[in-house]
Amino acid sequence: MILAQTLKGFRNFLPADMAVRNHVLQIVRGVFEEFGFEPLETPALEYAETILGKYGAEADKLVYQFEDAGERKIALRYDLTVPTSRVMTEFPELPKPFKRYQIQNVWRADKPQKGRYREFTQCDIDIFGSSSPLSDAEIVKVIYEVLKKLKLSEFEININSREVLFKIMESTGIVKDKYLSIVQSIDKLDKIGWEGVEKELVEKKKLKSEQIKTIFSNIKNAKPDEYLDDVMQMVKNYGVPDDFVRFNSSLARGLDYYTGPIFETVVKTAKIGSVTGGGRYDKLIGLFSGHDIAAVGTTIGFDRICDVISQLNLLKLPKTQTKVLITVFSPKQLKYSIKIVNELRAKGVNGDLYLDPAVRLDKQLKYADRKGIPYVIIVGPEEIAKKGYMLKNLTTKTQVFCQNVDELIQNAK
Amino acid sequence: MILAQTLKGFRNFLPADMAVRNHVLQIVRGVFEEFGFEPLETPALEYAETILGKYGAEADKLVYQFEDAGERKIALRYDLTVPTSRVMTEFPELPKPFKRYQIQNVWRADKPQKGRYREFTQCDIDIFGSSSPLSDAEIVKVIYEVLKKLKLSEFEININSREVLFKIMESTGIVKDKYLSIVQSIDKLDKIGWEGVEKELVEKKKLKSEQIKTIFSNIKNAKPDEYLDDVMQMVKNYGVPDDFVRFNSSLARGLDYYTGPIFETVVKTAKIGSVTGGGRYDKLIGLFSGHDIAAVGTTIGFDRICDVISQLNLLKLPKTQTKVLITVFSPKQLKYSIKIVNELRAKGVNGDLYLDPAVRLDKQLKYADRKGIPYVIIVGPEEIAKKGYMLKNLTTKTQVFCQNVDELIQNAK
Repeated sequence: MILAQTLKGFRNFLPADMAVRNHVLQIVRGVFEEFGFEPLETPALEYAETILGKYGAEADKLVYQFEDAGERKIALRYDLTVPTSRVMTEFPELPKPFKRYQIQNVWRADKPQKGRYREFTQCDIDIFGSSSPLSDAEIVKVIYEVLKKLKLSEFEININSREVLFKIMESTGIVKDKYLSIVQSIDKLDKIGWEGVEKELVEKKKLKSEQIKTIFSNIKNAKPDEYLDDVMQMVKNYGVPDDFVRFNSSLARGLDYYTGPIFETVVKTAKIGSVTGGGRYDKLIGLFSGHDIAAVGTTIGFDRICDVISQLNLLKLPKTQTKVLITVFSPKQLKYSIKIVNELRAKGVNGDLYLDPAVRLDKQLKYADRKGIPYVIIVGPEEIAKKGYMLKNLTTKTQVFCQNVDELIQNAK
Repeated sequence: MILAQTLKGFRNFLPADMAVRNHVLQIVRGVFEEFGFEPLETPALEYAETILGKYGAEADKLVYQFEDAGERKIALRYDLTVPTSRVMTEFPELPKPFKRYQIQNVWRADKPQKGRYREFTQCDIDIFGSSSPLSDAEIVKVIYEVLKKLKLSEFEININSREVLFKIMESTGIVKDKYLSIVQSIDKLDKIGWEGVEKELVEKKKLKSEQIKTIFSNIKNAKPDEYLDDVMQMVKNYGVPDDFVRFNSSLARGLDYYTGPIFETVVKTAKIGSVTGGGRYDKLIGLFSGHDIAAVGTTIGFDRICDVISQLNLLKLPKTQTKVLITVFSPKQLKYSIKIVNELRAKGVNGDLYLDPAVRLDKQLKYADRKGIPYVIIVGPEEIAKKGYMLKNLTTKTQVFCQNVDELIQNAK
């Protein structure tokens, strides 16, 4: 016998979980399309060299990679940004600015913990081929609209710029090669604090105490540069209220590929880490084509958002999308039940037909109750004689005789 | 520089491809929910032993498998039936009959050819915990409704039963161990014909010519058994017209796990193989739990259906979901463009704002044209003075002055 078990860090989504996920998905996709982003999908598997060497050494360790039967080195998608950057090179004919959204799973062999899974869904929007600060601002505006529509009212979009951080390092006399490695340490601020970052910079990154002091002090006193100022002004013009946006000069982001503004969102009422992350990455596509294409975007952390929504109990969803169970009184009366379920479905009503005509009626009602189906239709000899149907409301325990489908729909509202 | 390339058998879906896919998906999911099926998802990766040993030796060779960093033998999902069977064992509390739909990608290291990909989407419905022929009939009815709604009018659902095939082998004196191996040869009938199957049965399966003759003749003269008769009667009662259903005694299906009725659908006007496949598999879940749970279901071959729809040109979809481009007359006038795009989006209109305010208006109109966006809004000094907006229809080349959002929406219908 085979043990029925799921790999650690991976999840099964039962109908109740899917109800939350489908609801969130619909809202996210709706906002993306309202803003004129168009759908795109890429394969789960890529050549390993497409994936590796873009995120940084620590992230590369988390990439699932293996050799296929043709001895090709292949890897599972780690994010959606790099595969789409590959697409932008492979399909140069796409009209620019190209605004795409992509909603797909990614895989990371990370240590599973609260809000961190080995398979999770990213909802990405990116704008390719625009160096205008209005593009960065539009990304921030979309984040605001999505989280607002999801009723996550207590959130804050943190904004900084890699340029700001790089300039600080430059002025401290750090060599360019070390910039990204230091950025990766600063990115751990939330987890290990200033002291922890200092320790890592001394021990692992071999920085002098004096240098670190200067960097930290410059970070704390930093101001947005001109481009970021423009972005923040346009975010304001776009109608995002000030309370939801904060210039946070210690925001670093972990991935190597960011070159300009960076964004990250925290839900203040839920301790679950960031729920969105993104920024500008004008040099990534050049790694494929040799020709840079300006790019900016964000991920909406779908799984964490679903977790927050469940945790804060923000949604009151019905247990099932099924509206009514059509019972079968006996094998002889089956044809009447089939007739009515066909008519209901043809009118777009989600109706479940009880599938074993030999089972007793009370057991069928119990089935509807356990599934959370709110209505039940009974077609027994009495109803057949009267050429109609009994509609039973399982919540109010009341019932009403209906002559036809339209009456049934009317009474089941 | 890294070569920008996609693995053979894998595909990128650009916005135009996604338009077809999203349309088909919406119809498929709609029918599934109308019939009371509930959503479920399982991980892309499973323990290899969960996946292997269920489909047959030939299929097992196509499973993508590897060792993860923790030296666990893991495999990518080959279909959706086996992972859900694992779920049925892991979550015995799910109320039965349990009707679930699942729409996810699967991976097979198969030789890529027309209609056959290494990554493709399956849309599955299955009913767990019902041995009633009405369940099998409901699966057939759903297939009929989905393909009808997709306007694939020229299709035929072929029905047979593994029981019928096994009985024929039993009466020919074949030992039980060989049944599934012979079924796999018969499954190749469409590709290699009766002679090809005979050759394989002689050479690879070591059957005597006399035996094969008897088997073939018995298959050609076979009749449905009692259970399958009941299923076909209920398919009729369910309102599926006779023209769309055919008892086909040479239908075998390739996978090992089927135990009863089997179904497969062919679109007569498109040479692309089967577009649905399924059947009853009452013994699969027992491999995990030791306790069998009756099960029947089907896959809707999403990618092949999208291929057929594109091939037969069955859909006239707009090039983009974006309804209107809001141009920016100049950086100074940007705020007017932002105001109107915010208002349009708030009313649910998919509107794209041109992101580089410094670009000339004619280039912005060209962008809309290339993307297939049907309408453009212009807010220049003249419009601002008149406190309104110019709405340009790019198809008819006409324009109309509008005073507010509602007028714009009215005129862009």
